[in-house]
Amino acid sequence: MSSGDPDYLANANRLLRIAPYHQWIGVELLEVSKGRAVLRLPFRPEFVGNPLIPAYHGGITAALVDLAGGVVLFSELGIPTPTIDMRVDYLRPAKAGKALFVEATLRMLGRTVAHVDVVVKDEDGKEVATGTAVYTVKDRDNPDAGNFPIG
Amino acid sequence: MSSGDPDYLANANRLLRIAPYHQWIGVELLEVSKGRAVLRLPFRPEFVGNPLIPAYHGGITAALVDLAGGVVLFSELGIPTPTIDMRVDYLRPAKAGKALFVEATLRMLGRTVAHVDVVVKDEDGKEVATGTAVYTVKDRDNPDAGNFPIG
Amino acid sequence: MSSGDPDYLANANRLLRIAPYHQWIGVELLEVSKGRAVLRLPFRPEFVGNPLIPAYHGGITAALVDLAGGVVLFSELGIPTPTIDMRVDYLRPAKAGKALFVEATLRMLGRTVAHVDVVVKDEDGKEVATGTAVYTVKDRDNPDAGNFPIG
Amino acid sequence: MSSGDPDYLANANRLLRIAPYHQWIGVELLEVSKGRAVLRLPFRPEFVGNPLIPAYHGGITAALVDLAGGVVLFSELGIPTPTIDMRVDYLRPAKAGKALFVEATLRMLGRTVAHVDVVVKDEDGKEVATGTAVYTVKDRDNPDAGNFPIG
Repeated sequence: MSSGDPDYLANANRLLRIAPYHQWIGVELLEVSKGRAVLRLPFRPEFVGNPLIPAYHGGITAALVDLAGGVVLFSELGIPTPTIDMRVDYLRPAKAGKALFVEATLRMLGRTVAHVDVVVKDEDGKEVATGTAVYTVKDRDNPDAGNFPIG
Repeated sequence: MSSGDPDYLANANRLLRIAPYHQWIGVELLEVSKGRAVLRLPFRPEFVGNPLIPAYHGGITAALVDLAGGVVLFSELGIPTPTIDMRVDYLRPAKAGKALFVEATLRMLGRTVAHVDVVVKDEDGKEVATGTAVYTVKDRDNPDAGNFPIG
Repeated sequence: MSSGDPDYLANANRLLRIAPYHQWIGVELLEVSKGRAVLRLPFRPEFVGNPLIPAYHGGITAALVDLAGGVVLFSELGIPTPTIDMRVDYLRPAKAGKALFVEATLRMLGRTVAHVDVVVKDEDGKEVATGTAVYTVKDRDNPDAGNFPIG
Repeated sequence: MSSGDPDYLANANRLLRIAPYHQWIGVELLEVSKGRAVLRLPFRPEFVGNPLIPAYHGGITAALVDLAGGVVLFSELGIPTPTIDMRVDYLRPAKAGKALFVEATLRMLGRTVAHVDVVVKDEDGKEVATGTAVYTVKDRDNPDAGNFPIG
């Protein structure tokens, strides 16, 4: 279960793409280890929200926060974890035409919920957004709940 | 500037679609009046996050919160208003295959920032998410800032 | 279990004051009915954050959001419900010297968590803050969990 | 303007206590340097929310998030910065009877708003809460705005 294992990463990316939205957005998992995941989002023209800057739409950034947190928890628990709520802070415009990088860190894994922190950076390493999301993990001890895709 | 004027609505929808992301997501403005906007999001298969329920991805819901708040403020101020931060509460799965409806209400319009509350409902009127977003409005009195598209 | 029953209200206020912080802050429950609670906070000089306006400290307003949500859930479930996370939006300064009024509304009661919306107003009915808080309710069906004070 | 200067710290603590709420809660500033502040909150019995654990009330933790962010910004800008909104994540109960430690880090200082991240730990170094708060800083270039206390 570490980023050093290419088979694990390939399989995780395959699971990630089971969600049609993940397939459309085109996000790929670069690294995943205990409590941490790094993803990359290649640019698509449909991501543009403000065509004058031009910059990514805030809904794309928000989707990255949400899904990156889910990926970290799936790597820990092997089950999908519904998002309870999420906050996104928009620090600066995410310039169109370039990829984004997303790093999610598990902050607290409880019996009922988990808190995940996320940072979104541009290709130059500048932070464009941060976020915190909370997920339901109460089925983590239920063996029947392990066969769901990342979502 | 009210929903009773079809020309105003048609023009507002045209402006809304200047953003490539808005064009892709396919959202349409149904009503807009002082401090309130109602939008409709027709379903697309790419919106699905969890294919087992199946349900919308949380990133789509989050995008609706963000953009609906921007639409309310654009109808008030005539300028684009960058999102500062946003919270989304996921109340129940947004079932795939059906449209979503979004209602945004301006809670407080200050000199520097504005707070907007948003409710997302499914076709049956059930609330699937709520959200609050805060936007920068400090250029509201700057006449040169009025020629930007909704974003 | 309605605000029309003075004995119920008196008992609920007694339970509310078991928490030393609630006793210090001096909040009182005015109404409680299914999914809704109204509370009043008399002013104390120690509440002042900015002595120049002068206005309440944001930590007092935040405490009102947190505790009002807990009160609504306690009236529904009869158990204490730990707060998972909370957002507070500060709309305008809460002027010192006057009481605050807090209205909490249960937005969604799930099996695991509950979402509560809160509005804080001043004596003139002006909104000074809004908030959303999420609480763990997973022990709601556990009969042994019912003998805790509001917290 | 660094924690190595005892006069600077003493003066900053004096300014901090101008706010009656800060005086009551008893928080003290331990370190402050560019974009970072560390504070300590000695325990008071009035802080207890749940007397059965017993644990701090969430409103105390929330106040720490709010005020720590304000302290970091005051050390940068020399002006009070009204809080726009705040999120608090409650990670585990903050045990009564012991002090809390608060570390605030400036995430982004813009022309209009600033985002600050906060971590609250107990005496054993365990994280009890995290938070993010956003503040108005638009008067940062206004020389007449510099004579206000921290708030």
